[in-house]
Amino acid sequence: MNDKTIKKRIKAIRSQLIKKRIQSLLVTNPANVTYMTGFLGGDSWVLITDKTVYLLTDSRYTEQAKNQCPACKIIERNKPMAETVAQLVKKLKSIRTITIEKSSSLAAVEALKKHVKLRLKTAANIIESVRSIKDKNEIAAIRAAARIAAKVLKQTFTHIKPGITENELAGRLDFQIRKATATNSFETIVAFGPNASRPHHQPTSRKLKKNDMVLIDFGVKFKGYCCDITRCFTIGRQNSFYKKVYDVVQDAQTAAIKMLKAGVTAKKIDAAAREVIAKYDLPVYGHGTGHGLGLQVHEQPLISANSNVKLQPGMVFTIEPAVYIPGKLGIRIEDDVLVTKTGCKILTGNCPRRL
Amino acid sequence: MNDKTIKKRIKAIRSQLIKKRIQSLLVTNPANVTYMTGFLGGDSWVLITDKTVYLLTDSRYTEQAKNQCPACKIIERNKPMAETVAQLVKKLKSIRTITIEKSSSLAAVEALKKHVKLRLKTAANIIESVRSIKDKNEIAAIRAAARIAAKVLKQTFTHIKPGITENELAGRLDFQIRKATATNSFETIVAFGPNASRPHHQPTSRKLKKNDMVLIDFGVKFKGYCCDITRCFTIGRQNSFYKKVYDVVQDAQTAAIKMLKAGVTAKKIDAAAREVIAKYDLPVYGHGTGHGLGLQVHEQPLISANSNVKLQPGMVFTIEPAVYIPGKLGIRIEDDVLVTKTGCKILTGNCPRRL
Repeated sequence: MNDKTIKKRIKAIRSQLIKKRIQSLLVTNPANVTYMTGFLGGDSWVLITDKTVYLLTDSRYTEQAKNQCPACKIIERNKPMAETVAQLVKKLKSIRTITIEKSSSLAAVEALKKHVKLRLKTAANIIESVRSIKDKNEIAAIRAAARIAAKVLKQTFTHIKPGITENELAGRLDFQIRKATATNSFETIVAFGPNASRPHHQPTSRKLKKNDMVLIDFGVKFKGYCCDITRCFTIGRQNSFYKKVYDVVQDAQTAAIKMLKAGVTAKKIDAAAREVIAKYDLPVYGHGTGHGLGLQVHEQPLISANSNVKLQPGMVFTIEPAVYIPGKLGIRIEDDVLVTKTGCKILTGNCPRRL
Repeated sequence: MNDKTIKKRIKAIRSQLIKKRIQSLLVTNPANVTYMTGFLGGDSWVLITDKTVYLLTDSRYTEQAKNQCPACKIIERNKPMAETVAQLVKKLKSIRTITIEKSSSLAAVEALKKHVKLRLKTAANIIESVRSIKDKNEIAAIRAAARIAAKVLKQTFTHIKPGITENELAGRLDFQIRKATATNSFETIVAFGPNASRPHHQPTSRKLKKNDMVLIDFGVKFKGYCCDITRCFTIGRQNSFYKKVYDVVQDAQTAAIKMLKAGVTAKKIDAAAREVIAKYDLPVYGHGTGHGLGLQVHEQPLISANSNVKLQPGMVFTIEPAVYIPGKLGIRIEDDVLVTKTGCKILTGNCPRRL
């Protein structure tokens, strides 16, 4: 991660801390630690004050941290984390309160209470909300992940033939991802026929039949950043009901994407997609219409019926309406979008929709 | 999961609750939820009392929960989790205190404090300690995972040739795991040459050379249960220093395994392995000697210098001493063992140690 990028992020985080009157924030969430330091090792916490970003790590990672995090002061710990935090703030003197991320475990907080003699407060979503607006480098990484995803999906097309199992097709896809020097954002979902009606189906030894439906939901992680794509195909004889439902899901996705621009509330995007599906008397999906993408495959913002988040330029998330009819079919179409001032850019446009 | 197994587990958990004077325990850790209910869906909590095991889930999972968890009372929630817990305990009346797992997030605890009008306490490692003793079904699942691991490792041997990249070899292995209808316990590590000196190396496009070292650390997850194996090989001309270090690491592993039986303290196992390596003036590894295996790839017990756990029959964990010399080599040998009254059984004995 380049130094300038990290400094920009720290600046954005500090302005949130000032706004929320937070003197020092203790960050335990690994993705948040990576975001604000560039550090890619494990088992490390950050304490950020108005002057310094302290990375608390152990001897396994000290060398890596020094290379990856020139903007941080590295504290090598040889005691448990909470005691190291206590030592540090005792030395700093100027700190009177520590604010802890609400995503921290209760065990971490209890250990801190035991050792740190300062007032402890809690706060949620400080780093997460900064992370929800992607910078240039992050957008480039997600674009690169999406390009790899398009390429590897095409490479698996030759294998989508009767007789292949869900497991094997998932394996073929994952293998191509590896060969492209990337990894999976999450465990690849391949579902044939009615299996696709379960949104979180795990691949089985079910074989592809002569006239069958295929759902592939997969993600590529590249340079730390995730994309997430779903495509549905049929092989053999066209099924007219499938065709009808597919077009409705596609219309629902288009309706949501058309609404996208800075200033719109997330729940309006969600409603736009659902309305199309309801209009055709098809069952409306139980999950959200989309979720943020970045260092994690599920992050802010959430595009759902209860989400009052106002879209901002730089937000990246999925749009993935679906129709599930248990025992019959499941169709989901998922693309990744970048919000701009006046609309959006589709980052996964090159990923083929037809075999 | 069969009903009898779940009932046995619940009985073991309840006897811990009685011992620790816990009236009701709220379980938020997903692996703990799976362990005590058999439920394989997501986003669900358990409240266990002296009479009933309540599984709190949402409409996406109600049907699955009813099928998978005949021993539980299913509560379908349409409100946030904490409010659902509050409603439930209000109805139950007899509950005066709720104990929460310390691994729960602070956010979860704060939401509970807001809605639940009872006394909240915390406790750590209740379910985890019961989970550390594996039952017959669990041991069978880990054995099956280890059998698959041995088979897929052999299948990749034909690819261990000069020119293949770390990425591609990892991909080949993962593909075979998929074909065997299993998944990875964790992201496969393949390291060539000096790359192996980093215990958590991620595969790169580094190609295998004519005379080179190979480290493969991988795990298979089957029927929910994990194994974890590391093997080191060389190709081409034998390197005498490699050979010497390999034998020392093998001796260290053997020394630790010889010590294994019920009643021995974990830190003694750890010391036995380290002593062998120190005796040969080689650098002693920075990580623990082993970790428990089960629903998670890292669970209790930890086999490390500070671990006072007394081994019990039914514990399953790794033994994985290593020597790392940065810039030169890394050798780790890792097998999975089951503790018995009088010794141990090696569950990964069939996994080849030579090409």
